[in-house]
Amino acid sequence: MDEQTDLMKKIISLCKRRGFIYPGSEIYGGLAGTWDYGPLGTELKRNIKNVWWEDVVQKREDMVGLDAAIMMNPKAWEASGHVEAFTDPLVECKVCNQRFRSDKPKEIEAHQTGHEKKKEKVDWTQPQKFNLLVKAYLGVIEGKQSEIFLRGEITNGVQVNFKNVVDSTRVKIPFGVAQIGKAFRNEITPGNFTFRSREFEQMETQFYIKPEAGEAEKWFNYWKEERMGWYQRLGINKDNLRFRDHEPDERAHYATMATDVEYKAPWGWDEFMGIHYRGEWDLSRHQKYSGVSLTYRDQETGQTFIPHDVETSAGIDRSLLFFLLDAFTEEEKRVVLKLHPKLAPFKAAVFPLVANKEDLVAKAKDVYHALQRKFMVAWDARGNIGKRYFSQDEIGTPWCITVDYQTLQDNSVTIRDRDTTGQERVNADELSTLIGSRLE
Amino acid sequence: MDEQTDLMKKIISLCKRRGFIYPGSEIYGGLAGTWDYGPLGTELKRNIKNVWWEDVVQKREDMVGLDAAIMMNPKAWEASGHVEAFTDPLVECKVCNQRFRSDKPKEIEAHQTGHEKKKEKVDWTQPQKFNLLVKAYLGVIEGKQSEIFLRGEITNGVQVNFKNVVDSTRVKIPFGVAQIGKAFRNEITPGNFTFRSREFEQMETQFYIKPEAGEAEKWFNYWKEERMGWYQRLGINKDNLRFRDHEPDERAHYATMATDVEYKAPWGWDEFMGIHYRGEWDLSRHQKYSGVSLTYRDQETGQTFIPHDVETSAGIDRSLLFFLLDAFTEEEKRVVLKLHPKLAPFKAAVFPLVANKEDLVAKAKDVYHALQRKFMVAWDARGNIGKRYFSQDEIGTPWCITVDYQTLQDNSVTIRDRDTTGQERVNADELSTLIGSRLE
Repeated sequence: MDEQTDLMKKIISLCKRRGFIYPGSEIYGGLAGTWDYGPLGTELKRNIKNVWWEDVVQKREDMVGLDAAIMMNPKAWEASGHVEAFTDPLVECKVCNQRFRSDKPKEIEAHQTGHEKKKEKVDWTQPQKFNLLVKAYLGVIEGKQSEIFLRGEITNGVQVNFKNVVDSTRVKIPFGVAQIGKAFRNEITPGNFTFRSREFEQMETQFYIKPEAGEAEKWFNYWKEERMGWYQRLGINKDNLRFRDHEPDERAHYATMATDVEYKAPWGWDEFMGIHYRGEWDLSRHQKYSGVSLTYRDQETGQTFIPHDVETSAGIDRSLLFFLLDAFTEEEKRVVLKLHPKLAPFKAAVFPLVANKEDLVAKAKDVYHALQRKFMVAWDARGNIGKRYFSQDEIGTPWCITVDYQTLQDNSVTIRDRDTTGQERVNADELSTLIGSRLE
Repeated sequence: MDEQTDLMKKIISLCKRRGFIYPGSEIYGGLAGTWDYGPLGTELKRNIKNVWWEDVVQKREDMVGLDAAIMMNPKAWEASGHVEAFTDPLVECKVCNQRFRSDKPKEIEAHQTGHEKKKEKVDWTQPQKFNLLVKAYLGVIEGKQSEIFLRGEITNGVQVNFKNVVDSTRVKIPFGVAQIGKAFRNEITPGNFTFRSREFEQMETQFYIKPEAGEAEKWFNYWKEERMGWYQRLGINKDNLRFRDHEPDERAHYATMATDVEYKAPWGWDEFMGIHYRGEWDLSRHQKYSGVSLTYRDQETGQTFIPHDVETSAGIDRSLLFFLLDAFTEEEKRVVLKLHPKLAPFKAAVFPLVANKEDLVAKAKDVYHALQRKFMVAWDARGNIGKRYFSQDEIGTPWCITVDYQTLQDNSVTIRDRDTTGQERVNADELSTLIGSRLE
């Protein structure tokens, strides 16, 4: 087994064993392409989403949030081109009828090799377009139910509400709309753990700009740098990140400039977010299909126009997987998840030095309860203290706090740093402020 | 128009006009039973979910979070009884083939009256059971796609992971698993704004207890009080809240004790959350259908048993609607949304006294940017200050901060209270701490 395959196995195993991610519907043999987030994965995912929202919405003057429904009027998907063009090229193995994406030669090769080992001669169908939208049925009259689509990307919910947002808030161009939510795709070959799944979550911004020379390039580059910087500030090693511009023939149907942000995954460089200059594609198409004007009137110049859109679109599950992979560190005696403290599921763990001294345990519980009011905090009183440290290291807890005999005398506790393993003594009453300031 | 219908119209109008809630896919004529949350609604919803998570997961020692997939292996829905029993009784109008829930006599009567006004004689079919699960199709081979269900409630994702949670964390009975997520139902008659919709979000806890005498009653009552208290602490008038125990014939197929928490809605008392003693229903059924043991071994006593489950299940959209209705206050000169500060979309708004004094505006921007690092904050520099106050009152902003000439001399600003309209002067540098402490 090569080192990279080995790393994926370790991550998948850690995720299952410590409660980050379980296979979806596991007791029923699973459901291909779905995953359930366990207690720690749920906290990690919440932290990614909350930090993103704080940085992209709360701390900006030019962005508002939106939370649109997953189920939309099917006309929205005609207008956006998804019914016609949201396809992957698919080939079918004529021996066993399994289907693969024809743009994923490695997977096809692996399948072919499997047959050849069994002395079978493989033949493939010509590539065909396969639409990825998942169909669902609404309505209460049997035989007259309407076919709808589960959203294949969350963008449309923002675009169809452009006029509502402009009318109900005081946004002025340039401005953006941020959204977080689930999307669904009939992926031909889900794989690489949570990387390519049939149900996934996205965090996106649609940033509306004037249709003027230079604006698109300016904002496209701005958002490229801004997003790349965000992942780096949250601790991802910059050597594991790169931009990759789309070739003209691989761009989505709406994009005229498109760049992926890629991560050096165990299976090779692969994309987990994109920056797309969508031009006026969405608003002009929705205007045409709905008959509702989606123009914007500039109050200063009096100009009326259809704004252009620079999108940033990130997969949350993919981001989470790459945060985990990047943080995973094996040292001689321990495994450490060097997650950024803002992302770590627990900010701190509190230990009584020993579990059988009532006054120590009571004091440690007090410290634990006080911190719990502000942060996600773990409690552990089992076995020896070294093992407790290592147990927290493995799930990325940045600070471990130990209540010992000295605490009972002077109210001081030790606080141990996950990455350096260094310890310092601080007053227990200052812990909350200390941890709060380190999280800023 | 009676007062209550009038109130609903006002709320719906406010929601659209100020960007709380828009009809889903509105430019395409909508999609019945779906709603999109605008910028303010999105913040309000995030706040409800975040406060709930803090109170139910972060601040407790006996609860962990989970975030399971919406799409599950269909066997999970057979096991949980939803394929057979997740039904509403439905009658059809033989004149126009419209369908209604036979347990909603008011809606049937209104429909009947409509026909009678047109001198039409109405006849109804016998009540039939209609299954509410929404079907979707997965897979990439045409004609061989698998039928799956979108989850009709989020509970199953927790139940099927019971063993995973026990194995990957250190929970000990009694303990709970909390989850927030979307669910979908083919509602026969969506209605009352966001109250009954086809896509909605739930926040639930499944609390696992020992199957011993007295335990179920103890925890059922504990969670009743705990949940009722939560809504009251977040500001809902207690006269508008009540418990209503289910009659034996209306209990869901899994519940042996069930109480709704009801709100005095404009259309009458109606439920927005429930506390259900589900007994061993879920785990024993999933154990039977999956063949995987879902027993729990008590490490102290050595006993092995299938835990019983006390569930709390709240509709987030319904909760949000009732928070809005309860907060809506018309005074002589203004409309005020008296939302709890923790829930308010903006915690504060910052105004320069006038917009045409550069140094005032610059100072106000500094104050705005400093607060924005910690809270969702609005900015407004338009027109007269009284109108700006009223504009913030209408969306529930608890504190308005004005930077005036005195600020330039002594760094003091005025902070105005939404509910009392009283003002005090405080140092601008203390605003962040002041607001932070009022939010605790």
